[in-house]
Amino acid sequence: MATPKKVILDCDPGHDDAFAMFVAHGHPALEVVAVTTVCGNQTVERVTRNALGVGELAGMHAVRFAQGAARPLIKPHQAAPEIHGDSGLDGPSLPQTSISLDPRSAAHLIVDLVMASEPGEITLVATAALTNLALALRLEPRIAERVAEVAIMGGAIGQGNVTASAEFNIYVDPHAARIVFEAPWKIVMMGLDVSHQALATPAVLDRLTSLSSPVGDFCVELLDYFGAQYLQHQGFESPPVHDLCPVIYLIDPTVFNLVRAPVAVDTTSELTMGRTVVDLRLPAAPDCRHQVATGLDHSRFFDIVVESIGRLG
Amino acid sequence: MATPKKVILDCDPGHDDAFAMFVAHGHPALEVVAVTTVCGNQTVERVTRNALGVGELAGMHAVRFAQGAARPLIKPHQAAPEIHGDSGLDGPSLPQTSISLDPRSAAHLIVDLVMASEPGEITLVATAALTNLALALRLEPRIAERVAEVAIMGGAIGQGNVTASAEFNIYVDPHAARIVFEAPWKIVMMGLDVSHQALATPAVLDRLTSLSSPVGDFCVELLDYFGAQYLQHQGFESPPVHDLCPVIYLIDPTVFNLVRAPVAVDTTSELTMGRTVVDLRLPAAPDCRHQVATGLDHSRFFDIVVESIGRLG
Amino acid sequence: MATPKKVILDCDPGHDDAFAMFVAHGHPALEVVAVTTVCGNQTVERVTRNALGVGELAGMHAVRFAQGAARPLIKPHQAAPEIHGDSGLDGPSLPQTSISLDPRSAAHLIVDLVMASEPGEITLVATAALTNLALALRLEPRIAERVAEVAIMGGAIGQGNVTASAEFNIYVDPHAARIVFEAPWKIVMMGLDVSHQALATPAVLDRLTSLSSPVGDFCVELLDYFGAQYLQHQGFESPPVHDLCPVIYLIDPTVFNLVRAPVAVDTTSELTMGRTVVDLRLPAAPDCRHQVATGLDHSRFFDIVVESIGRLG
Amino acid sequence: MATPKKVILDCDPGHDDAFAMFVAHGHPALEVVAVTTVCGNQTVERVTRNALGVGELAGMHAVRFAQGAARPLIKPHQAAPEIHGDSGLDGPSLPQTSISLDPRSAAHLIVDLVMASEPGEITLVATAALTNLALALRLEPRIAERVAEVAIMGGAIGQGNVTASAEFNIYVDPHAARIVFEAPWKIVMMGLDVSHQALATPAVLDRLTSLSSPVGDFCVELLDYFGAQYLQHQGFESPPVHDLCPVIYLIDPTVFNLVRAPVAVDTTSELTMGRTVVDLRLPAAPDCRHQVATGLDHSRFFDIVVESIGRLG
Repeated sequence: MATPKKVILDCDPGHDDAFAMFVAHGHPALEVVAVTTVCGNQTVERVTRNALGVGELAGMHAVRFAQGAARPLIKPHQAAPEIHGDSGLDGPSLPQTSISLDPRSAAHLIVDLVMASEPGEITLVATAALTNLALALRLEPRIAERVAEVAIMGGAIGQGNVTASAEFNIYVDPHAARIVFEAPWKIVMMGLDVSHQALATPAVLDRLTSLSSPVGDFCVELLDYFGAQYLQHQGFESPPVHDLCPVIYLIDPTVFNLVRAPVAVDTTSELTMGRTVVDLRLPAAPDCRHQVATGLDHSRFFDIVVESIGRLG
Repeated sequence: MATPKKVILDCDPGHDDAFAMFVAHGHPALEVVAVTTVCGNQTVERVTRNALGVGELAGMHAVRFAQGAARPLIKPHQAAPEIHGDSGLDGPSLPQTSISLDPRSAAHLIVDLVMASEPGEITLVATAALTNLALALRLEPRIAERVAEVAIMGGAIGQGNVTASAEFNIYVDPHAARIVFEAPWKIVMMGLDVSHQALATPAVLDRLTSLSSPVGDFCVELLDYFGAQYLQHQGFESPPVHDLCPVIYLIDPTVFNLVRAPVAVDTTSELTMGRTVVDLRLPAAPDCRHQVATGLDHSRFFDIVVESIGRLG
Repeated sequence: MATPKKVILDCDPGHDDAFAMFVAHGHPALEVVAVTTVCGNQTVERVTRNALGVGELAGMHAVRFAQGAARPLIKPHQAAPEIHGDSGLDGPSLPQTSISLDPRSAAHLIVDLVMASEPGEITLVATAALTNLALALRLEPRIAERVAEVAIMGGAIGQGNVTASAEFNIYVDPHAARIVFEAPWKIVMMGLDVSHQALATPAVLDRLTSLSSPVGDFCVELLDYFGAQYLQHQGFESPPVHDLCPVIYLIDPTVFNLVRAPVAVDTTSELTMGRTVVDLRLPAAPDCRHQVATGLDHSRFFDIVVESIGRLG
Repeated sequence: MATPKKVILDCDPGHDDAFAMFVAHGHPALEVVAVTTVCGNQTVERVTRNALGVGELAGMHAVRFAQGAARPLIKPHQAAPEIHGDSGLDGPSLPQTSISLDPRSAAHLIVDLVMASEPGEITLVATAALTNLALALRLEPRIAERVAEVAIMGGAIGQGNVTASAEFNIYVDPHAARIVFEAPWKIVMMGLDVSHQALATPAVLDRLTSLSSPVGDFCVELLDYFGAQYLQHQGFESPPVHDLCPVIYLIDPTVFNLVRAPVAVDTTSELTMGRTVVDLRLPAAPDCRHQVATGLDHSRFFDIVVESIGRLG
């Protein structure tokens, strides 16, 4: 079997971030070397507490955890309690955690881990605002050539969710997103175009219930709360588990339809602030470093999810 | 039979504008009371000459023609010779015209005609940049409540054409588009989402050829040139006859799928300048005055086109 | 004696606009051929009523009056009742007027008068938002080469008044100001840098009182109200009679210190919206069409004012 | 005698930055605990080499030196070789340095030093783009309440230098400047309004020559080059030693006229990008944390400069 890919997961748990942590840690193709947090769905203190609790549940005691940016680069922070609740992970109860935080800030830890690794050894997964990644790039530009790839849940080719133009993660910190998308590294963007297909249907819930495991049960509770919020606020019958997309992509990229196309982020206009402008008009230039997901195979996607969560016991 | 709808056609011929003129004049459901011109596909002098030539061919001797804005409100004018040629209507030869221009500028004529009409009597069709309509609104705000409806070819829900964000007509004068979309009148927007379905396929060309009429032959020559340009510059196998959309809509709205949704136009960001942001996230407010076309019935669409052109002899 | 300069005065009376009307009509060096109005200090209906009343008082029965734009091009209109009151000319009572409005809108009248004149025959004076002038330029671009000069009260080299960046007239319609400053005609800008020196001191009030004339008395009442508002809202001991500046300039340009420098208007940033950016870093290019006033001779300025108002009886 | 103020000097030497280093290190009222560098006048590699050389000359062997951001947050970096030459410090020769760089990046070192100090113990002096300070604030927001004060050379109340709107240091990284000015700490801004008064006149050169010291001679060579560039490119007879201003302010604030006024930085408009909008219209709110210098006492200013440089031997 192949050596697992080393990943740093930058997140703001967040219901779907918790899924991303479970699957990334549960699947043998990936080795989570660090989990870093950033304000987004809730304050950085709350999402950090959630990350530690989820890490405890998943048994991530060998993984480094570091807290990151308390606010976006330029815009004021606006959380999403209507989707994730006051705690950022309302619904199930979190266990006490025995995991302690690294003293370094997230950007600092990312720089240290990447610079200490071999070129191409570490992959970044971002399921939140891109503030930490932007700070890391400005602290140490050489990480761009050393990271294997950056897999991002964020943006949209089509309609946004927080505004008609913008998806939540990018909208939280459009300036950071612009820094990340303009940096000279490979990016795969999984936006609402695919994450709105990553629906946790009743059949998915049944499979998770059938695991009869602590983590499986926790996931069902997460989805009960998350599903109710998505139904009420956005009219979805089944909730989209956005943040799983980049993790599944790293496990098996063939689950997705991908297109190579340049992505730019608007940081200027109030109307289009945070929009990811994906230029699909003509085939991309050969040196285009951006790929964008346009579709996914729902069945294979959730097979991986259930299998990975099943491994966590 | 119902009284025909009186329409003022504001355009920049332009190959597809010529089709819009032919069909609007040829179909008994519409009565073209004026054709007004604006810089866009070419300078306003060139598109005006083209409008007069097309009017001559179509026998529009009872229709008023007026020349409008020589440049957009704020942005410098940029024409589209790569699509429409140096004349703005390259391909066929235009006849000498016996039609003379109204001495009034387009915006002035629009104001005079609308204010002299009954409320709801006149419909505006715009197949070009919206500079004249914006000027008319600022010269006489009361036209907004007197016009029946404004049917516009412009914008896009999805990808643009001149940039990834913006469609050509809106991009030429985004500030004018913003004025028009913010005004208190009913608007139907036919963007690239439908106009890229209004393809003049070989079968359409065959039907126009079979008319064996001067206007039919002229249309075939138009499409030969237009099709070659679209193939070369945008990779289309058959050219999209954008400007026909709002005319066909006024003849038979059931040819289109329409959705009620607010449209806003970006005028601030270089990246998204001229983007029509259509908010489809939730059902529109009941007082939303904007409708946007999302699909069309190609067969019924071109039946109307061929029938109308056939009537012109 | 020289032939008087023919001027069209575009204004929004407005206390200081009323002074501009009185002095322009009272001084033999100028012949006011038209007064046009635009929304600004108050709605266009109110400032038009004020213009007609002031015209009646001044005996401007041979002057054309036309009402113009009811709102700025893009921004919503915001009036200044804290300075000019609810009527736009609070303080004295206006007489019934026997002057009737031209049926044309202001922009239309400006175009007609300029195009019917000889090149260089007509000078434009603007003491309000530049909406009418911008509309006129877009309706008929050739007015730019036919107008002698455009003398504007608006903008500032230094601090603004309505925001730290912007002066009121420009802020009301920054897009129109941009159109006017980018047009190929000669402009003299009199901004807050000089208009804040055009203070109606107690000595000026005494001289106006000593005229013992109806118009003189009216002016004193204007200044009583205006001065109280300026003291309360902006802390001025004597009120600045801004709109007199371009009129005095046309009567005697040597009253002012002028510098040739390019002026650009911001229309993009919320922070600097409507700022007139005057580039004084290096000597202007020889073809620079903009001059900006940097100082004035208070004594000569108000000699002309009092003399002109004295002539009105 | 009072304990010296501990300062971290963030700079991009740069001729006037070298003066700031000399005076800050030479004067007993200040203790330079660290010198950090940022791209600006030249690349960060070049200005770091210059900082180390100047530190060697000044005998700053007990001071920490750290290299910072290689590029601004969002905008591409544009250096100023026309003023500072290709090396960033053209003119005199720099000695070999025995000072080694701290392994931490500048922002990291600033965070560590400030968080390890008592509240109010450390003062920041910035004579360059504010990228490092902005990164430090986002890595550790609590530095804002722990720093005594931030003294900045940058911005302008009036005209800019690199554009009509903006001063060079702020223009290099307007987004960083916005972050720094919006942070909850005390700022004193010394802009072009005073730095253009800090002219190294022939009399100043004479006094430095009379020191007959290695550092004095080095300073004269710096000013010879710097003065020639300023004469050629900006028409100054004597060069303005901008970066001395915040250092002199910390030694003796009474050398300056200061006004309390809010400062905001434009990051949106191409025309006004990097402008420091200082609102002087009315007295500032009591909780306003910004002061802006409006004048200086040239004689006392350069007495301190010459005295401090004289102490360096």
